Amino acid sequence: MVIIGIITDFGERGHHYVAEMKGVGLQINPDVQIIDVAHSITPFSIIEAAFVLYKTYSTFPKNTIFVCVVDPGVGSNRDIVAIQTIDNYILIGPDNGIFSYFSNNNLIRFILKITESEFFYKPYSETIKMVEDHDEIYENPPSDSNISFPISSTFHGRDIMMPIAAHLSKGLEIFSIGTPKESVVILPDLEPKYSEKELNIKGMIQYIDDFGNIITNIPNDEFHLLTHNKFSKFRLKLLDKNYDIEFVSFFAENSPEKILLIEGSSNFLEICQNQRNTASKLNVIVGNVFQIKLMEE
Amino acid sequence: MVIIGIITDFGERGHHYVAEMKGVGLQINPDVQIIDVAHSITPFSIIEAAFVLYKTYSTFPKNTIFVCVVDPGVGSNRDIVAIQTIDNYILIGPDNGIFSYFSNNNLIRFILKITESEFFYKPYSETIKMVEDHDEIYENPPSDSNISFPISSTFHGRDIMMPIAAHLSKGLEIFSIGTPKESVVILPDLEPKYSEKELNIKGMIQYIDDFGNIITNIPNDEFHLLTHNKFSKFRLKLLDKNYDIEFVSFFAENSPEKILLIEGSSNFLEICQNQRNTASKLNVIVGNVFQIKLMEE
Amino acid sequence: MVIIGIITDFGERGHHYVAEMKGVGLQINPDVQIIDVAHSITPFSIIEAAFVLYKTYSTFPKNTIFVCVVDPGVGSNRDIVAIQTIDNYILIGPDNGIFSYFSNNNLIRFILKITESEFFYKPYSETIKMVEDHDEIYENPPSDSNISFPISSTFHGRDIMMPIAAHLSKGLEIFSIGTPKESVVILPDLEPKYSEKELNIKGMIQYIDDFGNIITNIPNDEFHLLTHNKFSKFRLKLLDKNYDIEFVSFFAENSPEKILLIEGSSNFLEICQNQRNTASKLNVIVGNVFQIKLMEE
Repeated sequence: MVIIGIITDFGERGHHYVAEMKGVGLQINPDVQIIDVAHSITPFSIIEAAFVLYKTYSTFPKNTIFVCVVDPGVGSNRDIVAIQTIDNYILIGPDNGIFSYFSNNNLIRFILKITESEFFYKPYSETIKMVEDHDEIYENPPSDSNISFPISSTFHGRDIMMPIAAHLSKGLEIFSIGTPKESVVILPDLEPKYSEKELNIKGMIQYIDDFGNIITNIPNDEFHLLTHNKFSKFRLKLLDKNYDIEFVSFFAENSPEKILLIEGSSNFLEICQNQRNTASKLNVIVGNVFQIKLMEE
Repeated sequence: MVIIGIITDFGERGHHYVAEMKGVGLQINPDVQIIDVAHSITPFSIIEAAFVLYKTYSTFPKNTIFVCVVDPGVGSNRDIVAIQTIDNYILIGPDNGIFSYFSNNNLIRFILKITESEFFYKPYSETIKMVEDHDEIYENPPSDSNISFPISSTFHGRDIMMPIAAHLSKGLEIFSIGTPKESVVILPDLEPKYSEKELNIKGMIQYIDDFGNIITNIPNDEFHLLTHNKFSKFRLKLLDKNYDIEFVSFFAENSPEKILLIEGSSNFLEICQNQRNTASKLNVIVGNVFQIKLMEE
Repeated sequence: MVIIGIITDFGERGHHYVAEMKGVGLQINPDVQIIDVAHSITPFSIIEAAFVLYKTYSTFPKNTIFVCVVDPGVGSNRDIVAIQTIDNYILIGPDNGIFSYFSNNNLIRFILKITESEFFYKPYSETIKMVEDHDEIYENPPSDSNISFPISSTFHGRDIMMPIAAHLSKGLEIFSIGTPKESVVILPDLEPKYSEKELNIKGMIQYIDDFGNIITNIPNDEFHLLTHNKFSKFRLKLLDKNYDIEFVSFFAENSPEKILLIEGSSNFLEICQNQRNTASKLNVIVGNVFQIKLMEE
């Protein structure tokens, strides 16, 4: 049985949008298992979606298909793509940077631009056909796109991405859904900058969870390569303030006051406190940049 | 495999109420697939629930059963009903207006009032039996109801609606659950009022999503019949303010400042902006009424 | 097919943590059905989690396994345990008081401390093995624990609890996961205090739902044993204020102004109003204590 995971920014009040996607998927493949990965991505935050997808996907069984509907450009001419990863997962979503981590880490086997409307949600593919047959009624059809998006009432997660995922989950040959594509859009500034000479890392906040833990874009293993486990005291510069922070391996033993740097379970460094909401304390949001300076001991 | 979809106003903190419903359903039919449609309906908002159910149901496979627990009158003598639609879905919930759209659009094949306690959750049906055997201990039993609701500890979603749905999902003959009923309660003012002479529509806000998109009660197709695609500029009168708004077919190309009128994916007109929270900007809530006046070009 | 239910305090923004747990569980047992019981437990609130687990579990089919990840002591030396109940459910979680109700009500058949890392999430058990092979690199390994938790990047819900649950759901013999344990941690003050002489109950608020209903720790049946259905008027003393409240059996017939005492569907007394948010009105939070004094009629 194949699994489809869904990531959206639809939020609590948009959960019925997710339900429509599930309904459509189950119409096509009644045996597919659909799992909610995350629906509380900040609206339009491609950074958060890119992080959540990358951090989560490999916990799922091989051949799981992820549908990612965080899509500020819906209705524009951005492509919708399907990616086969080298470790045999399939990722479907708008080509807007959401797959940056997979490209940056050479995890992509191939990319397809989704074009074949016969696999779309039936009411939508019928509309497309009708429009193609009578396209003179539209004064300004989108010009440089293989798929035309003629109407604002399209919901691409429901009408295109989920149906494609459901067909693939039933065994549809992946190359029948579209045409090869060389590369995907990459988010700028997703990678931290290391200065070994100045013992300095410039990073970004890429997620904040409900505990107030601040998840950075600095991979645990890259941090180790830089520090060789020789440093435990750091200075954090963030929003024009400085904080003395400490790298620790054991969480619960620390005073709640102390700001900690830990290896997060997402494989990225986290800035946090023991049972305190650090994001509120530091008054930060996703996208904020910071510097961590290694202090000689 | 039959699917049961659940709509409630239980919210995040009431998700374990949903879990109890699922547990009870899976006790009765371990093979049923239960899907969360929406749980963040504003508490007691029948309008929102009616909209979400109507807009969502047909994306699901035929024979899907929907259980709708938005029930401000719980414990009163309102009926609990099961509806068979003409397109072969089953809808279960309190008869409080939640099924208005199905009645207004002639989508109902028949209605049953649910009465047969043998199909209820076992601890509850045992309580009912015990009470019936000893009903003299209750001074004021509800008078005009086939089912007596003797105790405040009843949770009708868990004790009546889900068990009935689960039994139906296993193949229980639907006419064995209760007695035929002529009609259901209809929400007043759910239908927009069109004045072709004055080029004017009076509508209502029936949902607001987490993007701040305002979903009206004006069906896309009725709007087209009125405007014949000849109008694109409108004046919106809402909470004593006037806004110049524009009907557009392509979403992403518009300035975020501009208030747009679009055909929503729910098949109702939406008032929105490109990547802005319009509901916050206009300071509206569900139930607010408005006028849209068509402007000659 | 066995079911696994999950209770966490991860919240909306931590839903991908839940997804990782599901992914790991489905890797081990693709046929298991995983149900979200509750994820909006107030962060670190063991009281709420204990209540939700106890109130919900028996609605699920026998042999359901519950994984409870509300764990303020993560990374400390608290045990992770699996409990077999006398009614044949399995409960897995940190030994921090979350299972108090099961102990207090003599529902525990036996307790195991989970120790066998071969059943953990593979990347984690490999890390453990690596650390055990080279444990001299760690200066301060935890001393009094069978499992060492060497790294902050451990996520015990994903790395230990869910894998154990998934293996059990596939039929793993339960005694192979760890070693017997005599007792679990009990939350103090979870039981109400009754004074029959003074006609007085001292209780605590153990949950507040999104309707604002206040769920107490007073079981419906114990309340009946005390009042013998002879009292309906009570004085509630809460946060230094007094309220006259009334015990009612029928909910919807009461004025929204009146503060009611009802038998809740969770089998605990609730303080609430008809369609009003009582928790907001009384300005209370979970953990607040109160007195209810029975008034002679």
